[in-house]
Amino acid sequence: MIRVGIYGYGNLGRGVESAIRQNDDMELVAVFTRRSPESVKIRTQGVAVCHADDIEGYKDKIDVLILCGGSATDLPVQTPEMAKHFNVIDSFDTHARIPEHFENVNASAKESGKIAIISVGWDPGMFSLMRAYGLAILPEGRDYTFWGKGVSQGHSDAIRRVEGVLDGKQYTIPVDSALDAVRSGANPNLTVREKHIRECFVVAKEGADKARIEKEIKEMKNYFADYDTTVHFISKEELDRDHSGIPHGGFVIRSGKTGLNGENNHIIEYSLKLDSNPEFTSSVLVAYARAAYRLNSEGQSGCKTVLDIAPSYLTQATKEELYKTLL
Amino acid sequence: MIRVGIYGYGNLGRGVESAIRQNDDMELVAVFTRRSPESVKIRTQGVAVCHADDIEGYKDKIDVLILCGGSATDLPVQTPEMAKHFNVIDSFDTHARIPEHFENVNASAKESGKIAIISVGWDPGMFSLMRAYGLAILPEGRDYTFWGKGVSQGHSDAIRRVEGVLDGKQYTIPVDSALDAVRSGANPNLTVREKHIRECFVVAKEGADKARIEKEIKEMKNYFADYDTTVHFISKEELDRDHSGIPHGGFVIRSGKTGLNGENNHIIEYSLKLDSNPEFTSSVLVAYARAAYRLNSEGQSGCKTVLDIAPSYLTQATKEELYKTLL
Repeated sequence: MIRVGIYGYGNLGRGVESAIRQNDDMELVAVFTRRSPESVKIRTQGVAVCHADDIEGYKDKIDVLILCGGSATDLPVQTPEMAKHFNVIDSFDTHARIPEHFENVNASAKESGKIAIISVGWDPGMFSLMRAYGLAILPEGRDYTFWGKGVSQGHSDAIRRVEGVLDGKQYTIPVDSALDAVRSGANPNLTVREKHIRECFVVAKEGADKARIEKEIKEMKNYFADYDTTVHFISKEELDRDHSGIPHGGFVIRSGKTGLNGENNHIIEYSLKLDSNPEFTSSVLVAYARAAYRLNSEGQSGCKTVLDIAPSYLTQATKEELYKTLL
Repeated sequence: MIRVGIYGYGNLGRGVESAIRQNDDMELVAVFTRRSPESVKIRTQGVAVCHADDIEGYKDKIDVLILCGGSATDLPVQTPEMAKHFNVIDSFDTHARIPEHFENVNASAKESGKIAIISVGWDPGMFSLMRAYGLAILPEGRDYTFWGKGVSQGHSDAIRRVEGVLDGKQYTIPVDSALDAVRSGANPNLTVREKHIRECFVVAKEGADKARIEKEIKEMKNYFADYDTTVHFISKEELDRDHSGIPHGGFVIRSGKTGLNGENNHIIEYSLKLDSNPEFTSSVLVAYARAAYRLNSEGQSGCKTVLDIAPSYLTQATKEELYKTLL
């Protein structure tokens, strides 16, 4: 049994908790929180909830620690710190800062002799893998990543910060005509606006100026100004009833040419349609936790990404079973 | 520069020849054939065409040998034999015999200290990878593989063996309603007949009994009897004009559930739409040739499959570049 710890118990931590139950070579040992442990109710009987300050006492009781904090402020500190004592997995997703995060985590993990796998999930994660495979197979080509339809947490937060807004949800939606153009092999140049639209469902406070709210959302720099954005005002009841889920998904498409004169076209398309973004991300984290455990058992150490890990490390099956059943 | 040799110069060998030109860290050193070398015209100037019997003279001149023979009789002999002297790649695709082929090739490659990567292409190959990733991420789920629309070489050959048939092509076509049922998350049980239809374009010899030909094709065991098959009689001119390409493709779909009560559904779909089946397969072979060279340069030896190779070995880019641009 691979003994797993969860650090941070939000949506992602809860997703990891349920994903572990689907993998019978794993057991959840403890959940660590920075809140008061008594205030955290988890859904697995008999598993300890501990304060994060007490984690070093679990050094010999946990094979892999899955870090479920946020990328803005939690993981840049927690992953290098925890890699001093544990094999760790994180879902660090600030793309521009991945090389820096890698260096910090690698230094810790090399020194401790542990394995750390960073930026695990679907983007970065499975989508990164698909971009790499596509580039490798069709070097004369282009890749396109589309996100959605799905809820963007960052954009939903931005809506809720607008004055007069009680609550809100934002959906990122790929533009069908752009997807079709890419699938045709035309290798179009697409602007930000041409690739995605943004749809907002907003609950306004009583008496708020809806015209002003709509204008402020649509003109918000870095979030909405570069997109065609629609704003729907709905009631709190409607929001809770129709928009409480956290679905997401997207597409990575590689379009490339082969032949002496580039006469043949090829389209590789990978798509995800996810009812629950955090639960899917958690499921990827758990598969890579298995890889971290195995790599470290082989004596490897240091920081890795999904690009550095052979697929055969990810499943419960032995290599022989995989050759027989999946090849 | 990675020095590459091609063994066997049919559709696949020609595909490898053109794929190498798209990878500027590689050069084609020689093409080996069992035919008379003078009779083989290749499309790259200044590259030797040699008889297969002379290949051992190239031991120190070739970093990776790409085997482009067939799975029925060529590769079971050639891959273990060539792995005694070279790092090798093959596209062995007789799924049921892969474990046996692996053992034979592994014994040779372990002894010689070379790397062999077998069953490279898209199925087995990229589709195998997708089945493995899907299983790892969504263990409570099912995968579905569909092929087509595309030309099946084996089924086209079978048509041409029917008495009275001058020429013919067979297309394997996935059934849309089956694809839709899988994409819905319903996890249907699908029979062979429900997944694919087979469409045949046949040129009959003058005076041949077309009704008998159609009946013989439709009732042919192991090839057509289990499918809904349509047969179109066309002229040789029409066949050459409209059906000379070798397109193919297909879908691997993983449908799985997460959540404490399996309440959330997720669909992972990978699809290929290929103008040229052999050129795409060749492009995958060339990417894995790079991996074979790198793994052997690191001191590794023995037989591998696509499941055993980390994606970062496949592209020209360094790991640092990949982290920066693709993660």
